[in-house]
Amino acid sequence: MSLKTIEWKDNSVIMIDQTKLPNELLFVTYTDYKQVANAIKTLVVRGAPAIGVSGAFGLALAALQSNASTKEKMINDLNSAKNVLFETRPTAVNLAWGLEKIMEVARSCKDPEEIKKIVVETAKQMADQDVKINMTMGKHGSKLFDDNDTVLTHCNAGALATVGYGTALGVIRASKESGKNIKVIATETRPVQQGSRLTAFELKHDGIDVSLIPDTAVGYTLANNLVNKIIVGADRILKTGHVFNKIGTYQIALLAKQHNVPFYVAAPLSTFDLSNNPEDIVIEQR
Amino acid sequence: MSLKTIEWKDNSVIMIDQTKLPNELLFVTYTDYKQVANAIKTLVVRGAPAIGVSGAFGLALAALQSNASTKEKMINDLNSAKNVLFETRPTAVNLAWGLEKIMEVARSCKDPEEIKKIVVETAKQMADQDVKINMTMGKHGSKLFDDNDTVLTHCNAGALATVGYGTALGVIRASKESGKNIKVIATETRPVQQGSRLTAFELKHDGIDVSLIPDTAVGYTLANNLVNKIIVGADRILKTGHVFNKIGTYQIALLAKQHNVPFYVAAPLSTFDLSNNPEDIVIEQR
Repeated sequence: MSLKTIEWKDNSVIMIDQTKLPNELLFVTYTDYKQVANAIKTLVVRGAPAIGVSGAFGLALAALQSNASTKEKMINDLNSAKNVLFETRPTAVNLAWGLEKIMEVARSCKDPEEIKKIVVETAKQMADQDVKINMTMGKHGSKLFDDNDTVLTHCNAGALATVGYGTALGVIRASKESGKNIKVIATETRPVQQGSRLTAFELKHDGIDVSLIPDTAVGYTLANNLVNKIIVGADRILKTGHVFNKIGTYQIALLAKQHNVPFYVAAPLSTFDLSNNPEDIVIEQR
Repeated sequence: MSLKTIEWKDNSVIMIDQTKLPNELLFVTYTDYKQVANAIKTLVVRGAPAIGVSGAFGLALAALQSNASTKEKMINDLNSAKNVLFETRPTAVNLAWGLEKIMEVARSCKDPEEIKKIVVETAKQMADQDVKINMTMGKHGSKLFDDNDTVLTHCNAGALATVGYGTALGVIRASKESGKNIKVIATETRPVQQGSRLTAFELKHDGIDVSLIPDTAVGYTLANNLVNKIIVGADRILKTGHVFNKIGTYQIALLAKQHNVPFYVAAPLSTFDLSNNPEDIVIEQR
């Protein structure tokens, strides 16, 4: 069973504190939406699909925290919370998607009590849905991988980037589950080291063969035929085909092209942004 | 004045202990050639030209340490020391070059006393020569750079990779000295971080504008026109044109080609290996 990154339990949000990985597997519990916003901002939780659901959970907490006596006041409270949550991470489109979905549901309710109930239910469904989507995507994607493939991945698009199972690593998990022998090469992913801290940790946790390489060694591994396929996740995918993802993704894609190694991006529909153009996207820098 | 990486003084070898950089600028003194071999092995001293001269200094110490009473016995002692020194670093050809040059000079002498004298003199000349060569190479190379260029470099091919002044960074120094405004972008150079520990340190030490980027950000800086030229050093250059250098150099060269950014390699003749083929070269791994 892969790690459960985010969970709703007893009117609170439980998350793995990813800043403590790989040294410590620590779960934190939040009852205030501002704690969730801070968790997104400080990378306690990260990964486009995971922060989409975290945003929804944050709004659900905000609904429970509100003392609004009318629907209008409740919507106002939710709007304020939405703004706080939205500003935490600009590049990944899933956050806007998760927040908007909850606001839509809230606006369709008749009173504050119904909003509280429906909003919590919807957020929980979104979390369940995320795992289901990843498992389905994994199943479809696993057809791309062959027995004894060595697959390179960058950053972490795993269980820890989603509610569970993962996008890019979900495809690897599904390939393993279908009986194929798959080895993974994970890049360190400097400067924040999501590859060494998170991808290597979660694959080892699940008993999947993983080797860690410095980001400087991608060219060497491809030039020496040590990699058959590459798969990564995405923060945002535009209708133009542009993929926004962790720094370093572009140069790996270019190396893949040079060495004729297939390069795949695994992402759910919530990662697609069909309205903006490349130049509209804010690139996060830290 | 750039840093003096290796020096012969009072029958001993003085080196900057580069494993302590950038936290501490510590000089170590060796009187035994085995200390020098260990220093090369443990990266106290590194950089192809620097280890070439270190090898020569190591053999000079071995000559002074020897109690040989005949020329034949002295050459035997030097041969044993040469083997110990040679095995420390296989990829850089300069080490073999430095050792062979000293052995040649020793063999041309008539007795142990003359060998001691001439070998020390030759090693000291090689050190002086290294700085002169770098300054000349810098002067020639500086014509490649224009005023207000931003130059990216990988690993450390600076004063700290040579006796002084540097090869790739020597070209940058000479460009600055000729009055051009040059900014440098240094890659971290994982896993051993010669870029962040050594290149950033020595350029800052000399007052040259330097920015540090993770190895993942090379593609981004080139794609966004933040770099005009790239220059690196080399461990070995073959007659086929193959350049052997720090892991990560190849992928930077490929990105340079994609983005039409000129990519230069600065190296002295001692880095050229005109006899071996690419498949003969041992690539060091640590």
